[in-house]
Amino acid sequence: MPERSAGGSGQFHLNLSLWTPGQLRTSWRLPGRDPLAYLDVENYRRLVRIVQEARVDAVLLGDSPSLGSVAGSPPQGLDPPMLFANLAAGTAGIGFVATSSSTYNHPYNLARRYLSFDHLTGGRGAVNVVTSFAPDAAANFGLEQPPAKEERYRRANEFLEVVTRLWDAWDADAVIADRASGRWGDPAKVHAIDYHGEFFDVRGPLSIPPSPQGRPVIVQAGGSEGGLGLAGRFADAVFTVAQTKDRAVSFRNEIRRRAASAGRHPDSVKISLGVVVITDETDSKARGREQELYETIPIEAAAAMLGRQLGIDPGKVGPDVVIDPADLPPGPTGAGPEGFQISTRALLAAAPLTARQLIYRSAGGGGHRLVVGAPEQIADDLEAWFLAGAADGFTVMPADTAADFENFARYVVPILQCRGLFHDDYPGPTLRENYGLPWPGQVARPALTNGARHA
Amino acid sequence: MPERSAGGSGQFHLNLSLWTPGQLRTSWRLPGRDPLAYLDVENYRRLVRIVQEARVDAVLLGDSPSLGSVAGSPPQGLDPPMLFANLAAGTAGIGFVATSSSTYNHPYNLARRYLSFDHLTGGRGAVNVVTSFAPDAAANFGLEQPPAKEERYRRANEFLEVVTRLWDAWDADAVIADRASGRWGDPAKVHAIDYHGEFFDVRGPLSIPPSPQGRPVIVQAGGSEGGLGLAGRFADAVFTVAQTKDRAVSFRNEIRRRAASAGRHPDSVKISLGVVVITDETDSKARGREQELYETIPIEAAAAMLGRQLGIDPGKVGPDVVIDPADLPPGPTGAGPEGFQISTRALLAAAPLTARQLIYRSAGGGGHRLVVGAPEQIADDLEAWFLAGAADGFTVMPADTAADFENFARYVVPILQCRGLFHDDYPGPTLRENYGLPWPGQVARPALTNGARHA
Repeated sequence: MPERSAGGSGQFHLNLSLWTPGQLRTSWRLPGRDPLAYLDVENYRRLVRIVQEARVDAVLLGDSPSLGSVAGSPPQGLDPPMLFANLAAGTAGIGFVATSSSTYNHPYNLARRYLSFDHLTGGRGAVNVVTSFAPDAAANFGLEQPPAKEERYRRANEFLEVVTRLWDAWDADAVIADRASGRWGDPAKVHAIDYHGEFFDVRGPLSIPPSPQGRPVIVQAGGSEGGLGLAGRFADAVFTVAQTKDRAVSFRNEIRRRAASAGRHPDSVKISLGVVVITDETDSKARGREQELYETIPIEAAAAMLGRQLGIDPGKVGPDVVIDPADLPPGPTGAGPEGFQISTRALLAAAPLTARQLIYRSAGGGGHRLVVGAPEQIADDLEAWFLAGAADGFTVMPADTAADFENFARYVVPILQCRGLFHDDYPGPTLRENYGLPWPGQVARPALTNGARHA
Repeated sequence: MPERSAGGSGQFHLNLSLWTPGQLRTSWRLPGRDPLAYLDVENYRRLVRIVQEARVDAVLLGDSPSLGSVAGSPPQGLDPPMLFANLAAGTAGIGFVATSSSTYNHPYNLARRYLSFDHLTGGRGAVNVVTSFAPDAAANFGLEQPPAKEERYRRANEFLEVVTRLWDAWDADAVIADRASGRWGDPAKVHAIDYHGEFFDVRGPLSIPPSPQGRPVIVQAGGSEGGLGLAGRFADAVFTVAQTKDRAVSFRNEIRRRAASAGRHPDSVKISLGVVVITDETDSKARGREQELYETIPIEAAAAMLGRQLGIDPGKVGPDVVIDPADLPPGPTGAGPEGFQISTRALLAAAPLTARQLIYRSAGGGGHRLVVGAPEQIADDLEAWFLAGAADGFTVMPADTAADFENFARYVVPILQCRGLFHDDYPGPTLRENYGLPWPGQVARPALTNGARHA
């Protein structure tokens, strides 16, 4: 029998995606939606207040450093760490998970940016490190195409090695602050990291000490072999895609095994399962909006995109063509996210589906599982998956942010709290505490803030 | 006779530096100062509220992506754009000038970060682009030492070329937002920049349109030949160092000439003169604090540092040794900021000074001019320099942020307002309006926010 939760608390964590206008990118077409909401900071601020009131653990934003297409929907948008640095002002309890690329950033800059963020928020920051497979990102950084997946993950490993060493480079007693002698810090306790690798040579250290949660939470989202290895070594939380409970359970077990073989306690990495949600006061209202949302999708283009992501000839993938699992390439194609490909294969093995059905079931083609219904039904679904050992928590992606974000926070969360599946209040001031994560091993708890400050 | 101001308004602009614990880095040693104030976001937030009330145009933070030394004072600190993104929440009117390195950033990432910031603030962002001469910064980015100054400025030119093209890549009517057809944007009006240069190949465009002030304000701070060229081409504002009015007047004229020969109106670049300030309710109180501040300086080490920055053998520079102008190398040494070297040479030409006197006169050795006194005296000084045509405004650097920042905002600014030298209220919601800068030429004023939004 699967254990009820990794931490044994019987409760799961909840993240909400702030991606606007929603996982279903064409939802801006619905009446009353602001087509420029993706740039509207006051709207984001309102949404953050709503989930903070609901005691949701964190908001998150995916990202790619590229435009994509503007033809049918708004592009990616504002720089996630900058947006979250702004939104975090005046909040408490709620965490912020921003996405950044290890392929197109330098680890010194990223380490400094996110550790700064962690100080700004009192320890509520997280970085979701992605390796950015999008071809159009490469061209913004002087490359014809992205490095091969294997190289991207080799770089990501070095990247996180450098970043974590930089985060841990100040000893807890490095600040002396002795007014009489004029000694502010002890240079012997602020350590150069002197890293020399295949991709990076970084001396360090940073100009800032560890944060109130030690260091930012590290999130990882790739489902490929490289992603699993990275998660086992570095991730505090793993975002994942699964269309079936079996797939989710085995993925969670695999990540826990990887953590253990990297010498870490399996409970020190939390699996967060992505779920696209359409919910409303009643089931029929939710179903009605679901249909309205489907009608915003340019289905021919979405089918072709699905074909590309699955590695099938897009010309063969019409909306109402049943996808034959035999047409799928046997291994990862490199053309799309591998976790998505594996998850879709599992879905097709269970029942024949057309491209249209597949697209609808992931609300636009993102590959995540879609759950539609009244708040009680959403709560039932999450409870069942949690009790099956499929996840330590959920990353809820509103299909239509203007409606589903608030509906989830206001209607679904209280039901989960009532059932004892989700906390009534934040367990502590930091994101690590929200997620039930241990203090990061390599960093001593800082005596510095309370010690030196009042010297 | 010099004109009263570049814009002809008879008023100057004012920036205040948020650098903590102050331009005099050892000021943390004074009683009641928090030695960790450089990490205290609530303290920064309090300071921003104070200068916003005073209607100061902008706060700014210098930066270097390196540690420096922690032995005697706090290091550089939090990442400036992240800190300012946080501090900007809930403010209005006040601008934010963050410093970033063109040598150690990629222009795509920087362009996106600052244009995001400009959206977050409703057009109150600025980037102060520096080329980072500090040797210890290079080692954080895989280099034995920084690229030569000439190469750094060649890169900075390309860097700003790429950044400004990325900022200008969306036409004003690029967003269609037609719900019926499902067309969100017009791909033909969102332009790839397809830049290919010596340092960068960048396709673009960004995923965000121009901001409410068109694009972020560009600030430049170097006084070298490379810096002057860069300023003439790109800068909306130039921070500078001058110890004598003559030097300041000729620098301002030079920058205006450079702008004109780059095909720009000379009034489209504002000269902001750095001044270190120690001020208090009375002159004697200010002088008393000045002495207390001097006593925090480890004078032997500061003299050696001064020697290095001036290109003199540090062993020859004791605190009470008169610096002989004949000992100074004739040209730029590359060891320190060139504007500082030129400015110090001018000062020594006027009167013989010991190392101690030079250090005291710039409050710790930063090279900026120090003004000490009661609020009326500070106001008199700024007025005289402004009327002499030395600057379009001032960047005030509190020697001791815990005291001088608030003292300047509360006591000096009202006097300047009373004299009609400084505005009583913000002239508009954007930083460009605060500075009296024109709408940036390359960008059409956006119809998009008001047009598409309500379609």
